[in-house]
Amino acid sequence: MADAAPGDAAVPEVTFDTDPGRYRHWRLEVDGELAYLRLDVDEAGGLVPGYELKMNSYDLGVDIELYDASQRLRFSHPEVRAVVLTSAKDRNFCAGANIRMLAQSPHPWKVNFCKFTNETRNGIEDATAHSGQTWIAAVNGTAAGGGYEMALACEKILLLDDNSSAVSLPEVPLLGVLPGTGGLTRVTDKRHVRKDRADCFATRSEGARGKQAVEWKLVDEVVPKRAWDETVRERAAQAAAGSSRPAAGSGAVGVELPPLSPEVTADGIAYRHVRAVFDRERGLVEITVYGPEGDVPDTVERVHELGADFWALAMTRELDDLILRLRSNELELGTWVLRTRGDVEDALAFEHVISRYSIAEHGREADWLVNEIRHYFKRVLKRLDVTSRSLIALIEPGSCFAGSLLELALACDRQYMLDSLLEDDGEEGEPAQIVLSASNFGTFPMGNGLSRLSSRFWCGGSAMDDEGEHVARLRQETGRRIEAAEALELGLVTEAPDDIDWDDEVRIMLEERASLSPDALTGMEANLRFVGPETMESRIFSRLTAWQNWIFVRPNASGPDGALRRYGTGRRADFDRTRV
Amino acid sequence: MADAAPGDAAVPEVTFDTDPGRYRHWRLEVDGELAYLRLDVDEAGGLVPGYELKMNSYDLGVDIELYDASQRLRFSHPEVRAVVLTSAKDRNFCAGANIRMLAQSPHPWKVNFCKFTNETRNGIEDATAHSGQTWIAAVNGTAAGGGYEMALACEKILLLDDNSSAVSLPEVPLLGVLPGTGGLTRVTDKRHVRKDRADCFATRSEGARGKQAVEWKLVDEVVPKRAWDETVRERAAQAAAGSSRPAAGSGAVGVELPPLSPEVTADGIAYRHVRAVFDRERGLVEITVYGPEGDVPDTVERVHELGADFWALAMTRELDDLILRLRSNELELGTWVLRTRGDVEDALAFEHVISRYSIAEHGREADWLVNEIRHYFKRVLKRLDVTSRSLIALIEPGSCFAGSLLELALACDRQYMLDSLLEDDGEEGEPAQIVLSASNFGTFPMGNGLSRLSSRFWCGGSAMDDEGEHVARLRQETGRRIEAAEALELGLVTEAPDDIDWDDEVRIMLEERASLSPDALTGMEANLRFVGPETMESRIFSRLTAWQNWIFVRPNASGPDGALRRYGTGRRADFDRTRV
Repeated sequence: MADAAPGDAAVPEVTFDTDPGRYRHWRLEVDGELAYLRLDVDEAGGLVPGYELKMNSYDLGVDIELYDASQRLRFSHPEVRAVVLTSAKDRNFCAGANIRMLAQSPHPWKVNFCKFTNETRNGIEDATAHSGQTWIAAVNGTAAGGGYEMALACEKILLLDDNSSAVSLPEVPLLGVLPGTGGLTRVTDKRHVRKDRADCFATRSEGARGKQAVEWKLVDEVVPKRAWDETVRERAAQAAAGSSRPAAGSGAVGVELPPLSPEVTADGIAYRHVRAVFDRERGLVEITVYGPEGDVPDTVERVHELGADFWALAMTRELDDLILRLRSNELELGTWVLRTRGDVEDALAFEHVISRYSIAEHGREADWLVNEIRHYFKRVLKRLDVTSRSLIALIEPGSCFAGSLLELALACDRQYMLDSLLEDDGEEGEPAQIVLSASNFGTFPMGNGLSRLSSRFWCGGSAMDDEGEHVARLRQETGRRIEAAEALELGLVTEAPDDIDWDDEVRIMLEERASLSPDALTGMEANLRFVGPETMESRIFSRLTAWQNWIFVRPNASGPDGALRRYGTGRRADFDRTRV
Repeated sequence: MADAAPGDAAVPEVTFDTDPGRYRHWRLEVDGELAYLRLDVDEAGGLVPGYELKMNSYDLGVDIELYDASQRLRFSHPEVRAVVLTSAKDRNFCAGANIRMLAQSPHPWKVNFCKFTNETRNGIEDATAHSGQTWIAAVNGTAAGGGYEMALACEKILLLDDNSSAVSLPEVPLLGVLPGTGGLTRVTDKRHVRKDRADCFATRSEGARGKQAVEWKLVDEVVPKRAWDETVRERAAQAAAGSSRPAAGSGAVGVELPPLSPEVTADGIAYRHVRAVFDRERGLVEITVYGPEGDVPDTVERVHELGADFWALAMTRELDDLILRLRSNELELGTWVLRTRGDVEDALAFEHVISRYSIAEHGREADWLVNEIRHYFKRVLKRLDVTSRSLIALIEPGSCFAGSLLELALACDRQYMLDSLLEDDGEEGEPAQIVLSASNFGTFPMGNGLSRLSSRFWCGGSAMDDEGEHVARLRQETGRRIEAAEALELGLVTEAPDDIDWDDEVRIMLEERASLSPDALTGMEANLRFVGPETMESRIFSRLTAWQNWIFVRPNASGPDGALRRYGTGRRADFDRTRV
């Protein structure tokens, strides 16, 4: 890895496909409407050599399993209405991210690891908010740092009252870094811990337990040992009672998520509906998302029959997997060029199925599976928003950027649309077209709460639902095929070169992009993509993460005498006392 | 300077006292209700040796004069209702921060420089919003980077249409860093430039001019040369027409701001109402703000007679100056211990004068001077909020943390209040007391729009005016003297040790603080102080600044082959292409 900062342990090619049968670190048990997810880390099961995962600490591999479990609970277990996150180990709930792992990891690995763990915790909150699966943390031991942050992602936190179980954020005093998975933000913004108390809490390594933990709002309840199992079950059952999940006995059947098994070569990754071709010389990846083919399901039953083969779900899973692989494994491919390929009408027909069954407003109840697909695609789009790569959409004849697929283009930093036909192109005779649909007006909000259109045409309203005049006008344009000149006029694309200029303009733009400082681009894109308001979620990726990234590269943390490197050596860190 | 990163030019002891007679870089001309502030940088007038301030580029010294001018316009020129910011040089409006200066500056200098310039630009917006002095940028040449960002702080931007004048943000393509004074944020959040266009604009060094600059909303108007002077005057006069400043002929007389002339020694800085004592061994500064003494003015005329001697203004100026000096010159004093000393009743009496005349709600018009003092104290408190030092309030017998002075304590990361009397203390017999007043409920909002009480008791309301139940309850407690036990109960202080524990507890707390990583503290405090919502202003200090700080320490910018170091050498930067 090119970044030769602190530890330089070789980092492996990371894959994200797993399933409960292969978990090394988690035990998933479904008990009627409740699921128990127990952390039971295999010390020897680290993803990278060089550390042992003691005291239920985690690395990326542990978190990949947590992500997999959270996805399967949503798709394969319609009956589960509450999830208890707890530990299978005695006295240790979770010690957080493994410190030796962090100390030996290069800077980009640390940052990417934190991004993924943050997304997984946001996903847990998303399941609570949108899947009717409320996560409850049953903290039956010490929950330190990332361990407590995992609990913070849950809706309620129960803490065992045994004079040893405690919650803490010891990163600042012990490691000289911040809690990296939203701890500071969730403590104040979600749990409303008073900020001076949060300061005390986050600067003392022992954390809080018992009555004080409740009084400071760090946990919701402390429970004596004798009442533990029963209280946990009771609280989970209470959460389950209000769930929007299909009722027990509704006969809802989960969807299995088989392995994706893409074809991976040195030059790219190919799935069924998504293909990525690497161009190492130009430092870019060409990603093509293929639109739906074949019959559109005409009933919700048919969607369920298709399950993981339903195009929208299959494509979303593939795109998700691709984003994660590229982020972890292809650090020098700094630009992602996004295309779609397919029939606009087919894309809209599929889209119609999803919108018909995902939202209750159509006079019927939302279907749980279609709802899951919608929110999954939303989460994958959010991954794009926080991906530190330049994203460029190329909209060409034969593409199908329509409705929800148009969100892919809107998630990009720029959109180029070819005006008129390439004469020597063998395509059928239609020029490039895009179509707006209801999906573009709030079905897939960004982490800051805005639709991508509201973000694009941000007009400074203080309320998130004040979409402004131009977006309101665009609502009148839904359903129509919009060609390049009009798309440019409507502000939906950045440039619309004609076929004479297209190749050169695109080539030069990509060359220019590749010539810029990767760091400056990352910072610029993180600012421009998140225009306007912030939410707790977006604050985690901005205020918290950006500071953490700075701290990670500073010698006080990652230098040879820094706190992260010296942890566990018995030697105290040697700090440069300069305040910056 | 301990941080031995990129350039290691010796940095001087910085002072902030200046006046128009001593300006080297600006020309301030007052013409009735309009003021013209013309940038005319003296190339040889750099604050630090090693660079020339070519093409109207600036360094901290130039910005100190801009800050001084903006303050004097508010306090000494009640007649000025609009301010035209322009250049006295041909073809160069302003080239932004001097690049050689940036390249040679140590990391803490860069960060502190950006913080101050950001605060000054926020101050320009504050003058437009709250002083009835609307700033208009008359861009009569190229406005590049920080030059354009200076214009962005103005309410309107006029651009000369001469085929050469242009606005640009060339930092990303030329320097591998971000525009550091709010450019990206203001372009999207204030001017509502579409984000894909902002991406194009911020990645091309030549920027935009003429019609495109208007179409993209980068400027408000382009004006041909022949109509330039007249149009600028016209737009300024239009802005002046709606001003809340005293009407022409009202006889309002400005207040002179004489030099502060503190006594500066190796061990501290002493002003009339503010004293700072350095404790280098413990890495801290003990700051005492002395409350008002003597007669409280009983009329607004008396306030005007006192002018800069009016306690509230004098104290605010001194505190402002102290904060700026400590930030620039005392980087290793990482903890600021804040005390007040004085009579609670006197503090409240002064406070009453301010609240009576600063807000129109008391059945009379607000007095312009008292209004200025209020907003100035607000801005100084905001400086504390973004100061990268640990802030600890010690509330002891003899202190006067009442009303607006209580904001000083609430701006701190923690508040310690002594419960009961120190027996061997020679003070008169009253225990430490604090008093809430109307000032604590929104008179001095933080940059994120919250009062410090709403921030302290943040309850997650989506609207800024949803202060929550506890703050509403605290409104009932205004005007009463609150002793330590009750202050603790009400959540107004962090700890209330008794006289037996006080010394030890405070000593240990300060020792512990000093032992922590300065970087981790900076990141943690930046997160915990800004709980909840964000505004454009707070986003500039969070999303933008935190990313910029990260980019500043990365080799791609500041390494020997980085873009910032290689600028102007004729050699291109050699980037590590890894995306983080």
